[in-house]
Amino acid sequence: MSRSNLVPLSPQPLYVQIKDALRARILDGTYAPHSQMPSEHELCAIFEVSRITVRQALGDLQKEGLLFKVHGKGTFVSKPKAFQNVTSLQGFSEAMSSMGYEIVNQLRSFRIVKADRHIATRLNLPEGAPVAEIHRVRLLNREPVSLELTWVPEAIGKRLANADLVTRDIFLILENDCGVPLGHADVSIGAILADDDIVEALRVEDGSPVLRIERLTHDASGMPIDYEYLYFRGDAFQYRLRVDRQKPRRKAR
Amino acid sequence: MSRSNLVPLSPQPLYVQIKDALRARILDGTYAPHSQMPSEHELCAIFEVSRITVRQALGDLQKEGLLFKVHGKGTFVSKPKAFQNVTSLQGFSEAMSSMGYEIVNQLRSFRIVKADRHIATRLNLPEGAPVAEIHRVRLLNREPVSLELTWVPEAIGKRLANADLVTRDIFLILENDCGVPLGHADVSIGAILADDDIVEALRVEDGSPVLRIERLTHDASGMPIDYEYLYFRGDAFQYRLRVDRQKPRRKAR
Repeated sequence: MSRSNLVPLSPQPLYVQIKDALRARILDGTYAPHSQMPSEHELCAIFEVSRITVRQALGDLQKEGLLFKVHGKGTFVSKPKAFQNVTSLQGFSEAMSSMGYEIVNQLRSFRIVKADRHIATRLNLPEGAPVAEIHRVRLLNREPVSLELTWVPEAIGKRLANADLVTRDIFLILENDCGVPLGHADVSIGAILADDDIVEALRVEDGSPVLRIERLTHDASGMPIDYEYLYFRGDAFQYRLRVDRQKPRRKAR
Repeated sequence: MSRSNLVPLSPQPLYVQIKDALRARILDGTYAPHSQMPSEHELCAIFEVSRITVRQALGDLQKEGLLFKVHGKGTFVSKPKAFQNVTSLQGFSEAMSSMGYEIVNQLRSFRIVKADRHIATRLNLPEGAPVAEIHRVRLLNREPVSLELTWVPEAIGKRLANADLVTRDIFLILENDCGVPLGHADVSIGAILADDDIVEALRVEDGSPVLRIERLTHDASGMPIDYEYLYFRGDAFQYRLRVDRQKPRRKAR
């Protein structure tokens, strides 16, 4: 592909066209995961553009997480992100092990604390009520992929303290050991930058993009029993879901 | 609240305890949206800790998007993020206007292009087939909140070209003008850093956190008809959904 393959008279800046062309070739496997990209010099020749244009395209693809740089070695193609299908409520291990991933948890801390107002409100407890606070790092094929902060009422926490939190999901412990059938969860999904905690736990760079999930899980009777913040590495993970169209509102144009 | 209110002998570093205390007070409204936070000096006095500890806590809350700094004026509380409930498939305007938001779209470009291999595969078209490519910025209460890149087959594109893309959702135009009932969408959600395009379109800083949604919408017969990348400002927006527990897999522990 040379410059003549780029769209002539396109309203898109040249570097955007090159970025789009490179992205398409990464996503269709022409540039394979972990392979080295052509050098900046080679890309300049291929596209017949200046180095600054190539650099801008590569820089943007790095921000998207499709490429990464190794100092002194060049630019490489990231491996495809792992993803969790969240169309139904599943624990991480439950969801990922069914796709052939190995999941292990590092238990970083487990302690009883007093619920602050925010956590107490979510769990429908009085402020200051004792809750178990659990910090775990989830390892996917031995690499850290998420930091998970969990709060559950003290009585449930005592049951969890005796369970194998290293290899098992809290969801399955709740259902199978504690006899608490799960109902639904309310989930909020946002994007933030990694802070010091996340940098240390997930071994990413300061300011890396992080998918932040807030999840409040209820038992089958609708009582909130498990409040969590899940921080996923943006460069390694996606959430996926299928949503169905329901009857559109009548008034909408 | 003084240092004596912090948990003694807590395994958490002091700055984390202060961050958690401040976060709880932001989320419960003690520190109201748009209000100015106490100065670093005042926070040092309140918590009886050093300036470096206060700065680390404030810096992390800024990364989370709960606080923002105004040069020479101090630190302020961010307003709560807007959110879209994505439990069912809705257009952005359809979803947000039902919550009282005013939505307007800036149409940045509308052109017919040749589908690259990635887009062609998604839309089940031959590579190089003509598709309409639409770039829009969505304004929520007159502030840019998302950049949306849309590809649809040429025939649908011609219908959209005649419709009011400034105030109407593509979903509703498809259903009400084109007579195409929508079925389901496959959605992937990830976190990236803002690149130049996003910085310009959404007026955020370079390297800001961005929620990146890839969405492939199908008609009621299951045919893919609308492929999109949606880039949402991480500091202003969340995706929310409710997920239900389905029968757990029998083998799972």
